[in-house]
Amino acid sequence: MNNNKVIKLLGIKYPIIQAGMIWCSGWELASAVSNSGGLGIIGSGSMYPDILRQNILKCKNTTNQPFAVNIPLLYPNIEEHIKSIIDLKVPIVFTSAGNPNIWTKELKQKNIKVVHVVSSVKFALKAESCGVDAIVAEGFEAGGHNGREETTTMCLVPDVAKVINVPLIAAGGIIDGKSMLAAMILGADGVQMGTRFVACKESSAHENFKNMVLKAKEGDTRLTLKEITPVRMMKNKFYQEVEELYKTNPSKEQLLNKLGRGRAKLGMFEGDLETGELEIGQASSQINKVFTAQEIIQKIMIEFNSIKSQMLIANKFN
Amino acid sequence: MNNNKVIKLLGIKYPIIQAGMIWCSGWELASAVSNSGGLGIIGSGSMYPDILRQNILKCKNTTNQPFAVNIPLLYPNIEEHIKSIIDLKVPIVFTSAGNPNIWTKELKQKNIKVVHVVSSVKFALKAESCGVDAIVAEGFEAGGHNGREETTTMCLVPDVAKVINVPLIAAGGIIDGKSMLAAMILGADGVQMGTRFVACKESSAHENFKNMVLKAKEGDTRLTLKEITPVRMMKNKFYQEVEELYKTNPSKEQLLNKLGRGRAKLGMFEGDLETGELEIGQASSQINKVFTAQEIIQKIMIEFNSIKSQMLIANKFN
Repeated sequence: MNNNKVIKLLGIKYPIIQAGMIWCSGWELASAVSNSGGLGIIGSGSMYPDILRQNILKCKNTTNQPFAVNIPLLYPNIEEHIKSIIDLKVPIVFTSAGNPNIWTKELKQKNIKVVHVVSSVKFALKAESCGVDAIVAEGFEAGGHNGREETTTMCLVPDVAKVINVPLIAAGGIIDGKSMLAAMILGADGVQMGTRFVACKESSAHENFKNMVLKAKEGDTRLTLKEITPVRMMKNKFYQEVEELYKTNPSKEQLLNKLGRGRAKLGMFEGDLETGELEIGQASSQINKVFTAQEIIQKIMIEFNSIKSQMLIANKFN
Repeated sequence: MNNNKVIKLLGIKYPIIQAGMIWCSGWELASAVSNSGGLGIIGSGSMYPDILRQNILKCKNTTNQPFAVNIPLLYPNIEEHIKSIIDLKVPIVFTSAGNPNIWTKELKQKNIKVVHVVSSVKFALKAESCGVDAIVAEGFEAGGHNGREETTTMCLVPDVAKVINVPLIAAGGIIDGKSMLAAMILGADGVQMGTRFVACKESSAHENFKNMVLKAKEGDTRLTLKEITPVRMMKNKFYQEVEELYKTNPSKEQLLNKLGRGRAKLGMFEGDLETGELEIGQASSQINKVFTAQEIIQKIMIEFNSIKSQMLIANKFN
């Protein structure tokens, strides 16, 4: 895959990116993914500045391959995060949830590659005009925070591919070799997977949450809290309480109060499956075992290559 | 593709099915698709019994290839529709929006093949247990009436493929050769396309509606009216009015009153783009020209085969 645009841009072996995820993707997961030929990303959204610094340092100590940090652009201490990234020479930054105009130029001047996550064609065009090096187009089925247009990966990827010139990374519903191949046929140059790496040995998600992901069935997640920021989560007890609240025609403030603070940590990191907020994608229904990052990437590439070859001989295609 | 399961089951040349759509797919579209090697479907949901009979007769007069009738199982005059289908020897029936247990056995006893449309794994298993010959799994991005789980094509197809044994047809977001190939890699044996055939020369959709589809951009549709039956439609004036009503925490009755009767006909068939209900899928953003059914199917198969061959040599895959 030497001529694949994502591989060339990021200096990795396979066009597989592990999404930066709050409470799941610290240095241990990121370095394991990078050591396995993908791009590991430290999710800084749930980290205090000093914690991010520690994670970057540990990541650098455990891999000599490229890795990245994901920064939600609305993060309150963003200047400190940016400073750590520049000081510690992180080679790649993924930005999301905010305006890419603010930091892209500064990061690029420091020779840091910038990739921005979008959920619509409009934001893809905007990100490209801000000078980002690549774009992640994330569909409605993705876990965690999501866009307002509700465009699915199947529709968003070809729509974005048609209008941008920088490399395109597809996200949302991509979980294995066949969905990776499907996304690339739709127009992506590579893929980003979050949900698949939540239930990874090196993920810092709580074991209870990982076990819940293994048991998840089709229909077990929902995009909700759209009046605050749309977020896809497990339909657990907290979700049911939110649904009950919706029946009373709540104000945005009431929804914010219901969500409160620290719920994602409580659920995803501390393992409280009832009261916590459990951010995960629809494709969780397809995960039934915890693997190491290396096993996940190897399995994906074996399936990807196998389907590609089978298509020449498989009856259903010919 | 002689060994493709959908082709073998339905006796068609390509595993491309034109969805049965209210106000768009009468005999003219269905016979044009069937004459072009796909499966044309007459959408009976918007037809009085005598109109359906006329459509079946005209379809039989204009094609000697297999065609089908789609019946929403909640259709009020369903017995009369079923009688016409049996009397006039329609070879294939697609059922949707209701319990497949009621009519499947009777239709199969008359040597009619039955295919049922589902939006979840649960309903796929139920349909298979009722003895249907094949299943359409339709994702969240599809136009018109849709399921409650909001599972997208990218996630639904592999989930359903894993648990059923009958042939699987993917629907929702499939619009061309590359999305067809993607859906088949995800586990489908064939595809059903609705939105692509709305803007087809032989579709009975009003020209105004066809022109609106050509101009549609990513984000221009929305799944709404979930308290009645979830339906994906264009975000036109009527949709905006529904959104305004939602702000008042309306009862189901108020929503039903707002919808009223005949709105889909008004919009899709009579061309009132403001007051009418315009059912269409997310992939409408990818349509920019009206083609004949034959052109559509030829283009799809050329792209499908071309990508399949290119994958052997394209840099991004290898």
